[in-house]
Amino acid sequence: MSKARQQKKPDHLNELLAALETGAIESVRAILVDLHPADIATLIEGTPPESRPLVWTQVDDARKGETLLELAEDVRADLLRLTDDAALVAAARTLDTDDIADLIPELSDEVIAEILAALDKQNRQRLDAVLSYPEDTAGGLMNVDAITVRENITLEVVLRYLRRRGALPESTDKLFVVDRHDALIGQLEIGRLLTTDPDRRVSQVMDREVIRFPALAPQQDVAKAFEDYDLISAPVVDEHNRLIGRITIDDVVDVLREEAEHSILAPAGLSEDEDIFAPPLRTSRRRSVWLAVNLVTAIIAAAVVGLFESTIEKVVALAVMMPIVAGMGGNAGTQTVTAVIRGLALGIVSESNARRLLTRELAVGALNGLVFALAVGLIAVLWHKNLMLGPVIAMAMVINLTFAALFGVLIPVAVRRLGIDPALASGVILTTVTDVVGFFSFLGLATIFLV
Amino acid sequence: MSKARQQKKPDHLNELLAALETGAIESVRAILVDLHPADIATLIEGTPPESRPLVWTQVDDARKGETLLELAEDVRADLLRLTDDAALVAAARTLDTDDIADLIPELSDEVIAEILAALDKQNRQRLDAVLSYPEDTAGGLMNVDAITVRENITLEVVLRYLRRRGALPESTDKLFVVDRHDALIGQLEIGRLLTTDPDRRVSQVMDREVIRFPALAPQQDVAKAFEDYDLISAPVVDEHNRLIGRITIDDVVDVLREEAEHSILAPAGLSEDEDIFAPPLRTSRRRSVWLAVNLVTAIIAAAVVGLFESTIEKVVALAVMMPIVAGMGGNAGTQTVTAVIRGLALGIVSESNARRLLTRELAVGALNGLVFALAVGLIAVLWHKNLMLGPVIAMAMVINLTFAALFGVLIPVAVRRLGIDPALASGVILTTVTDVVGFFSFLGLATIFLV
Repeated sequence: MSKARQQKKPDHLNELLAALETGAIESVRAILVDLHPADIATLIEGTPPESRPLVWTQVDDARKGETLLELAEDVRADLLRLTDDAALVAAARTLDTDDIADLIPELSDEVIAEILAALDKQNRQRLDAVLSYPEDTAGGLMNVDAITVRENITLEVVLRYLRRRGALPESTDKLFVVDRHDALIGQLEIGRLLTTDPDRRVSQVMDREVIRFPALAPQQDVAKAFEDYDLISAPVVDEHNRLIGRITIDDVVDVLREEAEHSILAPAGLSEDEDIFAPPLRTSRRRSVWLAVNLVTAIIAAAVVGLFESTIEKVVALAVMMPIVAGMGGNAGTQTVTAVIRGLALGIVSESNARRLLTRELAVGALNGLVFALAVGLIAVLWHKNLMLGPVIAMAMVINLTFAALFGVLIPVAVRRLGIDPALASGVILTTVTDVVGFFSFLGLATIFLV
Repeated sequence: MSKARQQKKPDHLNELLAALETGAIESVRAILVDLHPADIATLIEGTPPESRPLVWTQVDDARKGETLLELAEDVRADLLRLTDDAALVAAARTLDTDDIADLIPELSDEVIAEILAALDKQNRQRLDAVLSYPEDTAGGLMNVDAITVRENITLEVVLRYLRRRGALPESTDKLFVVDRHDALIGQLEIGRLLTTDPDRRVSQVMDREVIRFPALAPQQDVAKAFEDYDLISAPVVDEHNRLIGRITIDDVVDVLREEAEHSILAPAGLSEDEDIFAPPLRTSRRRSVWLAVNLVTAIIAAAVVGLFESTIEKVVALAVMMPIVAGMGGNAGTQTVTAVIRGLALGIVSESNARRLLTRELAVGALNGLVFALAVGLIAVLWHKNLMLGPVIAMAMVINLTFAALFGVLIPVAVRRLGIDPALASGVILTTVTDVVGFFSFLGLATIFLV
């Protein structure tokens, strides 16, 4: 990692945009020089697309590789098109193998061939190793720069070896102890190495209980373990317990951030790869898929209203009040869905306590249903001077908030069991249910008691 | 940190709940023994409240302190009430000072006094130091276990010092170089220390450019810097650049997780401190605040519909179609709001490009407005056999989706400038706007052209 000599200030983006406005290229360069690639990436994403090529030419070649990695996928794709092959090969040379592996799918065959040709045999093998695992597994996440030692040598020998070897890889908090078949048998923490009598042997000092990840472990499990066990680095092993690489906390932090962004964006049908300044046509096309799904559900709800046209014709106050019933159900259900999705993600909710959770949410739904039934019932009577409208809307509220609780628990659990991401699909399904139940119960009860 | 000897398996929770069902206390203990405190906390949160005291008695005393820290605030409060003072003092003794500082606000005065009495002078001073800064600042987040060295000694002396000192604090990837006034002048990475000729002096090897945090720096800024600069630990300084502590990545990962949970839970009016099995009455009361706010906005929207009662009476199809107009506006606006909140959080959106973003979102809104106007217009005509209903609903769709885009950008930017968390308030305000605009434009146009 290149050193950050200067931390980004919040007004860097404003300064950059002002400099671009006036065409002051020297100022653009002055702002970018010495900035960390992560900050350069943020500035580029905040720059309108037509000015990005200019900004990109002012980025230090040494930082281009890492800056590319930090960019949203869409923005990166645009810049990759703008960068000639030689510059891409040079940029790749500044990166770790696991980072090159992340870029590979987006590069042309010629550039890949050149990058591979520029690597020595060992690094080419390493790159192959990382590329052979899916991107979202421990194997796809790993670096291949683990330092290994044998158990029968003394710490003195280890210390001499490290000194001869030179700079340690980033985030090296432990060395890995392997046997002659490369099988992982322990780990030696750097802190132990530094504070233990150098005459002792590795086997006497090493930790034999190592948290290790199979190469195909999903990256979410890796992230959870790093978080729970406060890891800085951890080994990745193949099916024969052979050490094949190590995962470091900085890559895990990126996974955690991606997961968090996904949980925020998915319920609105958005993707974390998107360029916030993408051409409107591209954005419009992408977003319209999700809007189309929502349109179908809105039409289903409208069809339910359509069943009761003659009732509404007679008591038009129903049309005024019906969005309240549907909307409150949607809001209450969203609370349940959100709490359950979080519980599932954290492992607090499982098959064996889902029923218990359901009972509790039903109680909460019924309670809030009663409270808001009273409130809305009273408001309805006073507003529309229709005494029977009160009990009708109150009953509909209780029914809808109870259904909202029921489906608020069932939908995420069922969606997850189907292998679909609950964050993506639960909200749309839930509001369909609460709209349908809300309109049907309210207008249905009105048909029975009001007309 | 205690060592995890066993990683949690996904069915631990199911096993625990089954054991509790049959009253097999020995099995409960067997499941908990050797588990990491983070896993124990997850299991406790997944256990119904009435069984938690039993589970708690089976948790190793040595793990109780850390388990308490990992629990949601509400669950922790319940368990604190169940734990006698002596056990709490004993639990505190197993914790770092920064962790004790996190617990202090929830402990009784007697327990605090006993904990303080049990600390030696140095640790009491350290605890005071952490307690003197707000919890969500660099000072509140810091540990006080930084290892410091002077610049004029050789690495050999540093190595001897470390060996004499014994085990290093968790996540020690660097030592801090201070002058005799404790002012921070550099940092010495452990990797450098291990791989450099021991005869050289600290001043020759240390890094003078140190990313440091003022004690009052907000924890979000700290987390962003750790993430962007791949830090493992970083120094905290007072206003005179004196080293007062250090922040480690494990605490930062917790901050990132909290922030992520907040972004997911806040839009549904939920809090991350909540117990998923809290008594229904407590949950119902908490959630009802947010539901009440939403009720007010629903009534505002209903009042708009109320203005057009006589129009609806004449063309009852309007009541059927109006939820579609309002709902599609809400969905499109939610997409814009979500994208803008994310842009603000990442620093991609600022004052100087907000106008540009607005233009772009308006174009997206108008485009999608046109597409769905056509679709919904056609559906309306075919469904209700009313030729003029098509153009009316189509115009309303374009108007509402354009307003949705406009307010989707303006609301989060304005809310943030008022110092309110955009994630918390934007959604509610937006749907009020899209409901009001949707109903008003649709029913208003219908009044002009249809009756």
